[in-house]
Amino acid sequence: MPKTLDLGSKNLLVGADVGGTNVKYVVLDAAGRRQVQDSIPTDPSDPAGTIARLAEVVGVREPAGVGLACAGIVSPATGFLGRSPNLPGWENSDLTGALQAAFSGVPTAVANDVNAALYGEFHHGAGRGCRHLVMIALGTGVGGGLLVDGKLVTGFADGAGEIGHMTLDPEGPPCTCGNRGCLESYCGSVGLVRRARELAGTDLATDAWKAMIAEHGSDLTPRHFAELAAAGDIVATVLFVEAGRRLGQAVASLVNVLAPDRVVIGGGVAQAGDLFLLPCRELVARHVMSEAGRGTPVVAAELGPFAAAMGAAALAAEAGAVT
Amino acid sequence: MPKTLDLGSKNLLVGADVGGTNVKYVVLDAAGRRQVQDSIPTDPSDPAGTIARLAEVVGVREPAGVGLACAGIVSPATGFLGRSPNLPGWENSDLTGALQAAFSGVPTAVANDVNAALYGEFHHGAGRGCRHLVMIALGTGVGGGLLVDGKLVTGFADGAGEIGHMTLDPEGPPCTCGNRGCLESYCGSVGLVRRARELAGTDLATDAWKAMIAEHGSDLTPRHFAELAAAGDIVATVLFVEAGRRLGQAVASLVNVLAPDRVVIGGGVAQAGDLFLLPCRELVARHVMSEAGRGTPVVAAELGPFAAAMGAAALAAEAGAVT
Repeated sequence: MPKTLDLGSKNLLVGADVGGTNVKYVVLDAAGRRQVQDSIPTDPSDPAGTIARLAEVVGVREPAGVGLACAGIVSPATGFLGRSPNLPGWENSDLTGALQAAFSGVPTAVANDVNAALYGEFHHGAGRGCRHLVMIALGTGVGGGLLVDGKLVTGFADGAGEIGHMTLDPEGPPCTCGNRGCLESYCGSVGLVRRARELAGTDLATDAWKAMIAEHGSDLTPRHFAELAAAGDIVATVLFVEAGRRLGQAVASLVNVLAPDRVVIGGGVAQAGDLFLLPCRELVARHVMSEAGRGTPVVAAELGPFAAAMGAAALAAEAGAVT
Repeated sequence: MPKTLDLGSKNLLVGADVGGTNVKYVVLDAAGRRQVQDSIPTDPSDPAGTIARLAEVVGVREPAGVGLACAGIVSPATGFLGRSPNLPGWENSDLTGALQAAFSGVPTAVANDVNAALYGEFHHGAGRGCRHLVMIALGTGVGGGLLVDGKLVTGFADGAGEIGHMTLDPEGPPCTCGNRGCLESYCGSVGLVRRARELAGTDLATDAWKAMIAEHGSDLTPRHFAELAAAGDIVATVLFVEAGRRLGQAVASLVNVLAPDRVVIGGGVAQAGDLFLLPCRELVARHVMSEAGRGTPVVAAELGPFAAAMGAAALAAEAGAVT
């Protein structure tokens, strides 16, 4: 932490992002610069205790606002967390109540983690200057968020943004949700690993690929093939191009429906970069109806793992501006 | 027209919907009731002349507002019509300028025709009481509109709502747009007629089906098979169930992404009713991720062919409330 940071300043914003294992947090100054960026462990059975501990560790006395992002279905209106597969012990807890108890009455905001990451990219990252954005976060699952006219779209029962479960082929591979052919079944870690094993049994398989599959059993992750892809392995290339084309099919449909200014691709898997994004962009250029839409930029997220904490802080700033 | 209508009343709203052959219009009273519902021919090469003629025929002296819906890409912000395949002679015309010249300075609004129909259903029809809606209009083409938090979504370059060109199968049948497997290639008139001819060559084909295909050459329309469907013909049933399932794949993805309160299906083809809607609803119940979303009502539009004119009037009322 820079020595110049005044913990009593009333212009500081706090943003935090609660995941299954830790709570990432940032402290932003009045200019939106990250003055602090750190994390504490999540207590999987004690939301109020975790948030109280966060307030202690952060140490800012009277922030201009505190925002909290959380994995799962978050209701910004009621402040409650609903279904949350990664945080079952936090389900049905009053996030806003816990925040206000821990930070004594400052303006607060809560949001789903992908929505918060989108809002972070909108304010500080790859979505700056836009009014309409789509974000797709590629990880173990595939999450999504929408911004229309500068506002996050939450929808009925806060259910919007399940981009990972768009059906790309009703006869496609099985998805963790029980259906077939969802975007997640092609572009989530589980789907990519399944396809990596399949490809090891084909004539295409290189020695390096077979060695990778043999070396990593159940701990195989897309990171391993990203390394081979960077080294030019043909199987890795095929795998990411296939997945990138499926991503492109979903993105093209989203551009047709929503006409965003830009589409932001985030999450760990997206670090395969152009190998993923180039085939995706090709599908967008081909399958979007309007000429303007075919040029929609599909770009990598910029903020990295603290995007949701940054976005939560930005949402809190707006909550503060309203009150 | 009821004799009690006072053409000088300042509470009347005028709404019109410009199509390739005629301009449908309505006059609504202060309570939103249709006092007049009629049409005049569209002059395909003279937007300003057509709109001036509309003002004369309608005869309302000082309406509270006048709204105009038009097929094609309409910019509510600039008032101009962009690309419009059904009205090429109207492209790049200043709709708002023509309206204000013809109706001398009353509040005006312009919108794309499907967006206006959606707004009509939202205010007066199948979408009453909702905040978030998706509308799909099935006709020669397949159009779409979105309402998020009570506002129409127009998107970058007013390109939102091309639901008909969501890619349901990249290897699917050819679409009029040049791609393959778009929703329109399954559920637009052209796609339905193509499939009807295909089915006539299969073992499934009934005598009645073969007779229908033989009787109607290039003038075959979905209306003809809807009649056979109503009579219980097995081929008609197969055809509408197939199309309804493809519609359901698209609707399920839209519910996953946007979480609308309701999905409204309009347009001529939708008159096949439950034969189309039941398989669609089954896919929604199966392919939507969230429990709340699986129950999203998928309903037929209520307002019929004057929906867009009604919606244009409602948009004009809001333009009037703002100024």
